[in-house]
Amino acid sequence: MLRIVAITGMPGAGKSTAAQALVKRGWTRVVMGDVIRAETKRRGLEPDAKNTGEVMKLLRKEKGESAVADLCLESITKLKAVKVVVDGIRSMAEVEAFRKEAAVLLVAVDASPERRFELLKERGRKDDPLTHEMFVERDRRELGVGIGKAIALADETVSNQHATAGRLAAEITHVVEQWDKHVAG
Amino acid sequence: MLRIVAITGMPGAGKSTAAQALVKRGWTRVVMGDVIRAETKRRGLEPDAKNTGEVMKLLRKEKGESAVADLCLESITKLKAVKVVVDGIRSMAEVEAFRKEAAVLLVAVDASPERRFELLKERGRKDDPLTHEMFVERDRRELGVGIGKAIALADETVSNQHATAGRLAAEITHVVEQWDKHVAG
Repeated sequence: MLRIVAITGMPGAGKSTAAQALVKRGWTRVVMGDVIRAETKRRGLEPDAKNTGEVMKLLRKEKGESAVADLCLESITKLKAVKVVVDGIRSMAEVEAFRKEAAVLLVAVDASPERRFELLKERGRKDDPLTHEMFVERDRRELGVGIGKAIALADETVSNQHATAGRLAAEITHVVEQWDKHVAG
Repeated sequence: MLRIVAITGMPGAGKSTAAQALVKRGWTRVVMGDVIRAETKRRGLEPDAKNTGEVMKLLRKEKGESAVADLCLESITKLKAVKVVVDGIRSMAEVEAFRKEAAVLLVAVDASPERRFELLKERGRKDDPLTHEMFVERDRRELGVGIGKAIALADETVSNQHATAGRLAAEITHVVEQWDKHVAG
């Protein structure tokens, strides 16, 4: 049976660090943001924060609120993976799309706005905010899509407020492997 | 200087258990739900889930989104307390009202929907949901007020998914006392 660990969390909270820890334990990682960035490029646009945000909105408008999740499910089918970690859940509509096809554990990775801004400055990915205003605006956009509800309704919450990358990795691995043992029977 | 630990979290997540732990460490507890329940009674209504929900909506409509926080601030002034734990934050508008008057640490207490439903069944307070439908409806109402955003933007997150009451108490006490040491200088 297909098992999906669906990872949500605000920008910079540490979702990818958590997902990478699971990759080391044999899980296949699918990044929702990559799907959006690929689609942004496909439409001839630079995949910066503004454009990816607009393409995300367009995709939802054209194909419904679970549009990005549906594209991910297509990738998962092609990969023939049975243990998948999906990095970057933004709404309960996406979680519900996954729940139709798999056993799903929804995990929220949390950190304070201050810490997330620091972590994003360290990361410096192309679509990461450069100023505090851009950071607040990106938070607002994510919250507008309903990420707060996904975080509030998570099955598990892992705090990255005071954790080292190693400790965050250990914690999510523990939580996921306990669940997987239970689900795989 | 007034310090407020503002506790948010979905119904049944363990907010009161966390707040009570701080009371044992000398913090004064103010319960936002009590303010709403008192107001519900004052209007001649039974303080059950439906009526308290409606009075909460009315209060916000009449006095703005931070109405309940403003009533709490009045109580806090009367109490002359300097270390206050406010139990039951439902929106960022409330947090911002507190931030105008105090140093605020916003703490989210999290647990999965399944665990929260179990914990609420054990508690059985008058306004607690009796059926799963009522539980889902109450979640929806809280999310409608914007509690998901407050949870997503918390300064600290404490998971009550696998914790005993004692462990939850120890964790929130640690987090709050570290912050308080820092703020009180």
